[in-house]
Order: sequence, then C-alpha cells, then structure tokens
Amino acid sequence: MSTEPTAASAAELTPEEVESRLTAAVAGSFDSCSDDRLRQLLQSLVTHLHGFIRDVRLTEAEWSAAIEFLTRVGDITDDKRQEFILLSDVLGASMQTINVSNRPFKDATEATVFGPFFVDDAPPIENGGDIAGGGTGQACWVEGVVRDTDGAPIPDARIEVWEADEEGLYDVQHEDEQVYGRAHLYSEKDGAFRFWALTPTPYPIPDDGPVGKMLEATGRSPMRASHLHFMVSAPQMRTLVTHIFVEGDELLKTDTVFGVKESLIKKFEQQPSGTPAPDGRDLGDETWARARFDIVLAPEGV
Amino acid sequence: MSTEPTAASAAELTPEEVESRLTAAVAGSFDSCSDDRLRQLLQSLVTHLHGFIRDVRLTEAEWSAAIEFLTRVGDITDDKRQEFILLSDVLGASMQTINVSNRPFKDATEATVFGPFFVDDAPPIENGGDIAGGGTGQACWVEGVVRDTDGAPIPDARIEVWEADEEGLYDVQHEDEQVYGRAHLYSEKDGAFRFWALTPTPYPIPDDGPVGKMLEATGRSPMRASHLHFMVSAPQMRTLVTHIFVEGDELLKTDTVFGVKESLIKKFEQQPSGTPAPDGRDLGDETWARARFDIVLAPEGV
Repeated sequence: MSTEPTAASAAELTPEEVESRLTAAVAGSFDSCSDDRLRQLLQSLVTHLHGFIRDVRLTEAEWSAAIEFLTRVGDITDDKRQEFILLSDVLGASMQTINVSNRPFKDATEATVFGPFFVDDAPPIENGGDIAGGGTGQACWVEGVVRDTDGAPIPDARIEVWEADEEGLYDVQHEDEQVYGRAHLYSEKDGAFRFWALTPTPYPIPDDGPVGKMLEATGRSPMRASHLHFMVSAPQMRTLVTHIFVEGDELLKTDTVFGVKESLIKKFEQQPSGTPAPDGRDLGDETWARARFDIVLAPEGV
Repeated sequence: MSTEPTAASAAELTPEEVESRLTAAVAGSFDSCSDDRLRQLLQSLVTHLHGFIRDVRLTEAEWSAAIEFLTRVGDITDDKRQEFILLSDVLGASMQTINVSNRPFKDATEATVFGPFFVDDAPPIENGGDIAGGGTGQACWVEGVVRDTDGAPIPDARIEVWEADEEGLYDVQHEDEQVYGRAHLYSEKDGAFRFWALTPTPYPIPDDGPVGKMLEATGRSPMRASHLHFMVSAPQMRTLVTHIFVEGDELLKTDTVFGVKESLIKKFEQQPSGTPAPDGRDLGDETWARARFDIVLAPEGV
C-alpha cells in the first residue's frame, strides 16, 4: 500500500507513541500556514489542548459534555450577553492575557480585565459631570490626575468610565435602551479629571447561564468585588484598561474573575450626611463618598 | 488593610511570579469542588489554558479575535450543524480523546472519530438490506463478522452504519427531511452481517463557517478521506465507534480530522459491469464494489 495514514496502527506503537504522533501530526498540519504568528498560536494551542486531554485521560462522555457546554455558551450569547467572555473571565484566562500583554513599566497603573459591559458610544460629560445618568446608588466623587511615568501631566487623555448600579446591573443588562452608569471625559491641561459616579457595589456576574451553572457545580461564588471600570487612552501612550476596587470590600479575596490587584484598591471615603460636596452640589441629607485615582500611563510599545 | 488581593502588586513580584500566582489562584478556586473528577478536569484545564496564554504571550487583540471566533462558532451551530465538533475534529482533539479513552486491547478493532452526522433514529434493515435509502452513489456490498477478542462470534450486535452520498453530503445536511445513507442492523447467530451501502467518496467538512475559514487561513484542506461510519454495540462489550477507509485514497495522509488508522484502511474491490452480486441483486450494467470488515469488540471496562 502506497499510502501512509496519519497515525500508524496501534499494533506497532505504544499508546503513548500513538498519542504523541497525533499531536505532532496536528501541529504539523499547520506547517504551511503563511502567517507566522497564526501558525505559532495554533501549534501551541494544539499542543496544550492535547496535553490537557492526555493528562486527564478525557473520556468520550466528558468530551461530549464539553461540546454540549460550549454549545450552550454559544446559545445564550448575543449582542448583549457575551458568555464566552464570562467563561474566559472565570477561568482567569482574561486576567492572564492582561498580565502577559501589559508588562509592568515603572510606576504605570496596572491593568485588569475589560469585562463584557463596555460600549463604544457612551455619552460625553464635562469634568465635574455625572456618569450616573439616572442609574441608582450612592453619589461618589472621583478625582485624579493622568500623568506619564516621568511625572508629566497628560492633557486631553480620553477617560471612559463605566459601572453597575446599586442593583448590580449595567444598563446593557436591561431590556430598555436607557443609558446609565457610563460616560467619557477628557483630562484637563494639568492632567486633572473629576466626575460624579455611583459608589461601586458588589454584584454577581450573570449567573443564569452555563458559566453560572459551572460556578455553582464547583462551589464557586459568582460575585465580583465592587469596582469602577476605566479605559484611559492618549496619543503615544499604552491604552490602560483597569478598575478601581473598594478598600475593605470582603470580596477582594474571592473576586470571581481574579481582577483584583493590590495597587488598584482605593479608599472610598464615606461622607456623613450634610458634608459639603467638592463642587457645591446639593446632596440634601444623602451621604456620599469620595475616591482619588491618580493614573500613570506607560508609553506605547513597552 | 485586612484584605489581601488575589494577585499581589506587580511592584513586589516579577511578572513571571504574578502569572504563576494567578494560575495557582484560579486552580485553587476549584479546591472546594465536591466532585473530584470535575475538580481535576477544571484544574488541569486552567493550567494548560494559562500555559498556552503564557507561552505565546497572547495579546489582547488576539484574545478578542479568539472570543469573536468562538462566538461565530456558536452562531452557526444549531440542531443540524455542530461547528464545535468540527473545531474539535480539525484540532485533533476528538481523535486524541478517542485515543486516550479507547486503549488498545488485544486485536480489538481500533476506534476513530464519531463526527457530527450520526442520528439516533436511523431506520432498521435486515441483513442484506440497503442503507442507501435513495442516496446516490455506486452500490457497495459490505460484509463481515463481529467477534470478541477470543475469536468467539457475537450474535445480535447492533451495527449502526452511516455515510455521505456521492455529492459528499449526509442526509441531515439537506433542508428536507429525507433519510438516506444510514441504517442499523444486527449481526446473525454466527456474528455475520452484510448490507448494501454506497462506495465512500471524499468530501469536505462543512467549510462555509468559521472552522472552514480557519482552515483556509492556515492553508489546510477541508477534505476528509473517503469513509463509512460504524458504531457497534453489544452487551458487556465496549461500544466501538469507527470508520473504514478506502485503500488507495490519496486523502488518507491528510484527512482533515486525523481519523485515519492503518488498520481501518480496507480494500474496496471494484467489480466490473455485469459481475453477479453476492445476493443476486440485479445491478443492470452498473459497476459496484465490495469490502470486507471483520469487527473485533473489546470487553467493557478495559
């Protein structure tokens, strides 16, 4: 017979050899890929994927369950619900990607997970404006300065901010078209920015889908530590995607997407009823909070 | 501060330590899973997944492309199209699962991939019946005996057979409800079975979706080597899922799902026009083919 099959007969090889040869054959099938990086990615993926299957001696029933799980992840995913990102998040894959693609640089602010709730067209606000947009929760004053790693202020940095309301829901999780809890603004000449937001509160990731069921089956909590999302960009600077977390939050240790970094934990100082607001805003007899977040951007390409 | 974040600040740790600690934290988050096997699977998955991300230094843009790819795989998947299985197949994950979960046992027939086209309720036929069911292609006589690894015949083994037509399409790939190219039968007292089918022809896996685009982008062919699917089950025996392949097929070396094993390549002997059929069937002036496939089932639990 002139043809040679991909995997030789088990009669001539040990099972381990059959398995190793298969992995090599699959990796080799990408040898003629003309995109070097794509070839590298797929060959590494195949090697690690096969390593997993071999290490756990995956059964066919478990393989079927995995296919079924991924199918359900696909079924629930739509324009507003991104269950694949949730899956990546709870397996720490999102955070590990952040780690490897945002190497520390001097005192640049650390990055954390993007999450599935950013939208491109959040409304603009002026400095001192309010991102709440009708979302409910305790008012929270946030201020800081954007600088580079030499300490020079960065004017006109674009600052995107987004967060959940006190019910733990982002606007895009509602059926209606209301926009709340998100906005963008720009740093001033001296790099300073300030805005009103809502004091972050803890919430579960959407847990009515397959990812939530996986967390439940494994005894893990779906809760995220309280946080406020930032994305900060400026010409020639590395775009920073991060959160700030609330000091003292008991969920800091068990954040279900592993997003917490110590440097991102900030004091959110509670202000008693009647404390004058920094901008003279009339808060009646409501309490409010204030937090400071000074942002340091790394240069592009580091 | 009494709380301790999941990952310590990068200021105190090397990037490699930050990455290793994250992997350990994610694996550790499954420590309280009460199902030992599920915990093992997820902890191994996390370790290998993070190993991949770290090895290739995955960028955020590549992560986003991966999420988008999986989303498209989910979008095209429905009751009749299973793109996740195709993905697993072309990455050799299906075949590797078959390898690790069907350890060779004496001379038991080797297993290969299940594929996405099996259906549960294929029609019954008698021995000597025809699985074609109106599907087009060259008539092909298939016969053999089902035995155990001691050589004893196995009567009443359930034999499921399925295949594509000469256009390379399975019945379930058509919009209509026609059933063709699939049936089930039982071995006789002496383990023997025989049926008419269609001579297998090569065909591409469904390549109009994201998996097809991935193959195209990497310079891989979507073609499968010609084959006829079998699933054979009997009480106390390990269920065998396999194919037989056609000796001389030039695609044996590059089967896109890596399903070929040398022991599964069979002679499909072409019969000139006018050659009498084994069962006296009138084939007019059509050519036909015949193949022999003797099946050896391993005992359950080996």
